[in-house]
Amino acid sequence: MSGLPYRAPLRDMRFVIEEVLDAPAAWRETPVFAELDAGTAAQVLEQAAAFASEVLAPLNAGGDLQGCRWDDGRVTTPSGFREAYRTFVDGGWPALACDPAWGGQGLPQLLNVALYEMLHAANHAWAMYPGLAHGAYECLKTHGSAELQQRYLRHVVSGEWLATMCLTEAHAGSDLGLLRTKAVPRPDGSVQVSGSKIFISGGEHDLTDNIVHLVLCRLPDAPPGTRGLSLVLVPKVLPDGTPNRVRCDGIEKKMGIKGSATCMMRFEGATGWLVGEPHRGLAAMFVMMNAARLQVGLQGLGHLEIATQNALRYAHERHQMRAPQRSAPDAEADPIAAHPAMRRTLWTLAAWTEGLRVLGYWAAQLLDESEHHPDPVRRERAARLLPVLTPVVKALFTRLGFEGSSLALQVWGGHGYVHETGIEQHVRDARIAMIYEGTNEIQAIDLVVRKLLPDGAGAVQAVAGIVEEELAVSLPQPALATHARAVRQALDGWCDATRRLADDAGSDAELPWRVAEDLLQATGLLLLGWAWLRSARVAHGRQEAWYERKRRCTGFGLDWLLPDIHPALARVQTRGVALPPLPQP
Amino acid sequence: MSGLPYRAPLRDMRFVIEEVLDAPAAWRETPVFAELDAGTAAQVLEQAAAFASEVLAPLNAGGDLQGCRWDDGRVTTPSGFREAYRTFVDGGWPALACDPAWGGQGLPQLLNVALYEMLHAANHAWAMYPGLAHGAYECLKTHGSAELQQRYLRHVVSGEWLATMCLTEAHAGSDLGLLRTKAVPRPDGSVQVSGSKIFISGGEHDLTDNIVHLVLCRLPDAPPGTRGLSLVLVPKVLPDGTPNRVRCDGIEKKMGIKGSATCMMRFEGATGWLVGEPHRGLAAMFVMMNAARLQVGLQGLGHLEIATQNALRYAHERHQMRAPQRSAPDAEADPIAAHPAMRRTLWTLAAWTEGLRVLGYWAAQLLDESEHHPDPVRRERAARLLPVLTPVVKALFTRLGFEGSSLALQVWGGHGYVHETGIEQHVRDARIAMIYEGTNEIQAIDLVVRKLLPDGAGAVQAVAGIVEEELAVSLPQPALATHARAVRQALDGWCDATRRLADDAGSDAELPWRVAEDLLQATGLLLLGWAWLRSARVAHGRQEAWYERKRRCTGFGLDWLLPDIHPALARVQTRGVALPPLPQP
Repeated sequence: MSGLPYRAPLRDMRFVIEEVLDAPAAWRETPVFAELDAGTAAQVLEQAAAFASEVLAPLNAGGDLQGCRWDDGRVTTPSGFREAYRTFVDGGWPALACDPAWGGQGLPQLLNVALYEMLHAANHAWAMYPGLAHGAYECLKTHGSAELQQRYLRHVVSGEWLATMCLTEAHAGSDLGLLRTKAVPRPDGSVQVSGSKIFISGGEHDLTDNIVHLVLCRLPDAPPGTRGLSLVLVPKVLPDGTPNRVRCDGIEKKMGIKGSATCMMRFEGATGWLVGEPHRGLAAMFVMMNAARLQVGLQGLGHLEIATQNALRYAHERHQMRAPQRSAPDAEADPIAAHPAMRRTLWTLAAWTEGLRVLGYWAAQLLDESEHHPDPVRRERAARLLPVLTPVVKALFTRLGFEGSSLALQVWGGHGYVHETGIEQHVRDARIAMIYEGTNEIQAIDLVVRKLLPDGAGAVQAVAGIVEEELAVSLPQPALATHARAVRQALDGWCDATRRLADDAGSDAELPWRVAEDLLQATGLLLLGWAWLRSARVAHGRQEAWYERKRRCTGFGLDWLLPDIHPALARVQTRGVALPPLPQP
Repeated sequence: MSGLPYRAPLRDMRFVIEEVLDAPAAWRETPVFAELDAGTAAQVLEQAAAFASEVLAPLNAGGDLQGCRWDDGRVTTPSGFREAYRTFVDGGWPALACDPAWGGQGLPQLLNVALYEMLHAANHAWAMYPGLAHGAYECLKTHGSAELQQRYLRHVVSGEWLATMCLTEAHAGSDLGLLRTKAVPRPDGSVQVSGSKIFISGGEHDLTDNIVHLVLCRLPDAPPGTRGLSLVLVPKVLPDGTPNRVRCDGIEKKMGIKGSATCMMRFEGATGWLVGEPHRGLAAMFVMMNAARLQVGLQGLGHLEIATQNALRYAHERHQMRAPQRSAPDAEADPIAAHPAMRRTLWTLAAWTEGLRVLGYWAAQLLDESEHHPDPVRRERAARLLPVLTPVVKALFTRLGFEGSSLALQVWGGHGYVHETGIEQHVRDARIAMIYEGTNEIQAIDLVVRKLLPDGAGAVQAVAGIVEEELAVSLPQPALATHARAVRQALDGWCDATRRLADDAGSDAELPWRVAEDLLQATGLLLLGWAWLRSARVAHGRQEAWYERKRRCTGFGLDWLLPDIHPALARVQTRGVALPPLPQP
């Protein structure tokens, strides 16, 4: 039993990086990336693909079956996880997109995101361990004291030590303002941390000798709520080599990602050091959280990709019944890929996967631009788009990752429901991503209530500007005009609905909360429409069969899937209906 | 660990049976049910509720954890399953809706359906064992020879023996025409059956001493395809008490319903007897299959009900963050039930559950009418509606059962992803119902291609007539007029789309297959709209808080959920787009 086979979609990745996003040209303009070219980037991805397909994917099913083992505070990961992690570190992968000043390779986030798409597709549970470390690196690099940076950054960059985000407590999940873990300052500048955390991914494991916990807690003089939270670095092993007073009290048995240790952690007067200012822990943590939300989105993309390729493979192998248009007249029956219902499903999977890849990689390109682009106007534009894009990537990608895995299971039918074929594991694994790092409901509120509405028309215009740019190029081309007009109509509807929502919220303050989910879905579809149109334009006029297939796929997205934006927008405008709480049963 | 608590929704069940469907009046008109009254029926349901809540629900989580055990051809069910089955048989439950001529209690299918909603909600895996027996009873009663009936019916009715449907083979799932299992006639009138079947629910277990297999196979002179299938009864134990040549070669490890044994069965020259005519096995099997499809729909309803009640309970217990409209100003935070996103989810769950219950019970009422109503016009109307309703119930209920379970998990957040709380098991268990007894894609084709289109306007008019009847009563009532107009608009759109599809199929023969899924969803929403409107009318003008909540719930369905019919209908009309098969990756 080795789980689903995974073949990294390198051709599609290069299409997005080189052709749709034109990243190599951007790298040439950006001093820190000036020496990177398309060929080098492609080589990096090929090596990552080999690791994901040959090392990680074969461990996925066994990791699910075996799970993690807890024994008196120690956690053992499934067979092969430790060796795979050693290979990963030896390959220098953790350092890929880190600053050379701390031992990093200084490559773009764009390549790191492509790397993580592959890791998550091949083995979501395993990829959880290194997946959080990059956020911790960003957080320490931005907010850590010089001394903390000196002591921890190189080890995190190299992957020698892994990191966690310790937020949730039993009574405080979405509501961090309720956190109770305490941090008491000591005269030597350290703090003493006491409290219990739950659902800590990688809180304890056997992959690294030390683990760097970033813990949200309260100083004695802290105001209540989220303005009283401080961020503290608590290592598993203290600088003098002695164990810290941190203990893993147990691990959860879960629906999926069973190879990822989800830990109950107890801090019993553990030693730590503040990261950033007192009571400003949430701001520091959000550096990490935003990186994590993009990561979680990539989990959705990874699940979609492996679901799509395995659904397609099976649909060509499995012959059942005659399709209305026969495709295998000499066989007993047609491949199920020929049946209209399956063709809908398969094109849906392909269009979602390929559209989301453009959006996810674009988000990474914006991260690179916001930090490194020489033009301040480009940096500012990127910084303005990212806060809007992040909740959409997190919520849209994870929803489609789960739904897509379930669609792939449907293609496999009864054989997909059986554990052995490996499809059902992806449905179970993908499900968590809709919950952690802020539930998808919270992402919708973040997008609508915190990003789109308060910014006046600024955030709306930033998104609209991106779509307008594409329309300006696509609309004049006759072969693209029908699809471009569909995107134009989607954009107009979206702008209108957003404007009206801002107006209507004046007389119905709760309205934005009530329709946030609809507007998030509509925003996701608008951006998908942009991604499909842009991809269609790039593929336009190319003769090779590969581009013909790409045009069909983007055409399917624009013809069959984009129109769903209109009912979503209609819902935004018609949900002024009272919605009282349901009484307790 | 005992799984989710389950409280049977007896008040809602009585509302549907007594008030919405006015079943007691129908019973009075029907000679075979003339002695049944509302009070007696309610008592039956109360006893069933006690069994489901107190005996079955506590076994559900353990059954999932333990699963079935296979050992050299023998299968052991999880702890407690055998004892629960004994209690079920001793209570006379298998005989509830069977003919008194064969030891049955002669009660309506309507009550049997309410019983099975509870069994599936409490323990889907367990309910699989008795769930198939009623179909086998109907099949034998309709198509079995007098001798077979004499030998087997009483034992099946009493529950002393259980039954299976042996259809699927490794290479033949949806496509029964490919089946290869052979039946060779013997001089004594029996047949000798040889072949292998997979995915046989309850193919082997320790609940009963004998198991009655109904096996689809081919006689030596059989034409190819489905017109060459014959149905054969193959008992596990022969009438002389010796074991038959039937062997269970193993059981599947599955995503869910782990307490239900899914068996690989081998027939090695086993002895059996034809049920019905040679080569007419499919027709005989469809008697069983239609009963099974309604059963499977009830699994979806059961999962929705337990998901809804547990999501609601948790949403009132769990306090996180302030809602835009505070509901617990003295607590640290508001219950999540007060947050708009959660209110949407909870009302959606409630509206789906309560709407589907009306539809599912109505289908059962039609079954009773079609068989027993003294008025031939009523019998004919019921017989005309049932073929349309069956695929909708199967596909719509199972989709919403799975999506609803997943929504409930979302309400529970990280705590729902943890095995211990029991929510995630329902997501896994509910998933299979979208696949077996004909995948939901096949249900859509059945509805559109086999039922709605070929019948000219007959089937469409039968459905429209039902909705029109309700509109005639609801439209004139001012308090209901807005909602009635929404249903009127839905009906007009549905009739129009169906008519146009029939026209367009003339020039695009594949179109109905391409849009079958959209039309099934639209038909489901139309019927839900009917169910909500009818329930709203019945609840109208009643003062008690219970009816006020019911009006809100039906109002939510009509305001928030019914409008989705319009984009679904639009899709039916705009999907003339070419949809070529995706090439192999």
